[in-house]
Amino acid sequence: MVVELYYWPEIQGRGEFIRLALEEAGADYVDVARRSERSGMGTAAMFRLMEDEAVQCPPFAPPFLKAGDQIIAQTANILLFLGPRLGLVPDDDAGWLWVHQLQLTIADMLVEVHDTHHPIGANLYYEEQKLEALRRAAAFTGSRLPKFLGYFESVLARNPAGSAWLVGDAPTYADLSMFQMIAGLRYAFPRNMQRLEPDYPFLVTLHDRVAARKRIKAYLKSKRRIPFNNDGIFRQYKELDT
Amino acid sequence: MVVELYYWPEIQGRGEFIRLALEEAGADYVDVARRSERSGMGTAAMFRLMEDEAVQCPPFAPPFLKAGDQIIAQTANILLFLGPRLGLVPDDDAGWLWVHQLQLTIADMLVEVHDTHHPIGANLYYEEQKLEALRRAAAFTGSRLPKFLGYFESVLARNPAGSAWLVGDAPTYADLSMFQMIAGLRYAFPRNMQRLEPDYPFLVTLHDRVAARKRIKAYLKSKRRIPFNNDGIFRQYKELDT
Repeated sequence: MVVELYYWPEIQGRGEFIRLALEEAGADYVDVARRSERSGMGTAAMFRLMEDEAVQCPPFAPPFLKAGDQIIAQTANILLFLGPRLGLVPDDDAGWLWVHQLQLTIADMLVEVHDTHHPIGANLYYEEQKLEALRRAAAFTGSRLPKFLGYFESVLARNPAGSAWLVGDAPTYADLSMFQMIAGLRYAFPRNMQRLEPDYPFLVTLHDRVAARKRIKAYLKSKRRIPFNNDGIFRQYKELDT
Repeated sequence: MVVELYYWPEIQGRGEFIRLALEEAGADYVDVARRSERSGMGTAAMFRLMEDEAVQCPPFAPPFLKAGDQIIAQTANILLFLGPRLGLVPDDDAGWLWVHQLQLTIADMLVEVHDTHHPIGANLYYEEQKLEALRRAAAFTGSRLPKFLGYFESVLARNPAGSAWLVGDAPTYADLSMFQMIAGLRYAFPRNMQRLEPDYPFLVTLHDRVAARKRIKAYLKSKRRIPFNNDGIFRQYKELDT
């Protein structure tokens, strides 16, 4: 089955967590909004679907996935659906749920990253909330970020199958997402990450292990990987990285 | 199977979404942190479990559930697990996933409610971030809140089985959570809700329909239902409700 991914074409954003899973599995997918409008795709196709009142299960926001007749939204929910189909979760129900739980905690962390530059509202420009952003970013890098990193480091440390992967002895979509978090945090908060990383050796190794996967490595070098930029969730504002 | 719920004993918070599902189903559960420490329970038992390094699947934060050997955290994940066991999801996989997707969107909305009074950080008192809270709350009630309510109203309007419930023709845990959102929003933002509610008749009716369910009605009158208060997620600060 060819799946269609719908997400903003110019940022990694939340869509990237899904792209990484599809790429790792070598799945056949169409990144609809990045295709040309002449071909009937592009962002116009994304908006058409979002505004179509005949859709019975409408997404609140991108990303969403079209798989056959099903339209599925919410990043973690899409990965919950794709996980078994792409071979990126353990076989047992408990393991499958545990991977999802980790993904939801990654999602919580991602919201807090986003809110470092948008603490007042997504409808306002960064410049309109810069003072508040300075305070929020300091609270994030000083307290929340080490708490999240410490949590995931402990998950790796406690994995009875070894500390190579978050769950079991094979990569799951949560590992791919954790790679993306580390990569994004390095882009947004290079100074803080340089300070913090020595305390989280399993996470740093996990990042490198994912980056070295054959298909992920090829993907990261390809044009399909959108570079980090200051329209995404991870943004490089030096004043927020103190 | 008796399940154990672990959550802060003095607030509704995120635990309430799980309590409502357990109560609607008439499930046998223990609200551990609300029991006495003399009986080996209370918050001490919650902290013991959170700090136990032998736990292989540690929760990042409450709420979490103990069901047999499994410890499951993240509100939406707990409901994903409980849904089929409590008869609070449709039988088909697509319906089960759709209910979860709605729950994740409710979770997103809840974070935004929380951040109206804590836009800078959960580690700081409200009074330390009141100026920022005034701006964030105005952005929430002016723009985000109507967007979320409009979304869920459209889900009810489009339900092919009728607009009584969000999914299919029977209540799911997402309906119970939506009831809780409306109740909480009325507590936190009474003036804004009075202004907005006429635009969302299906949601208002859904709230009343849930409140009238036999077991929910009994629960809401019981001592098991913790009253709303200003330590929870929904807080009544008049200055934020303009």
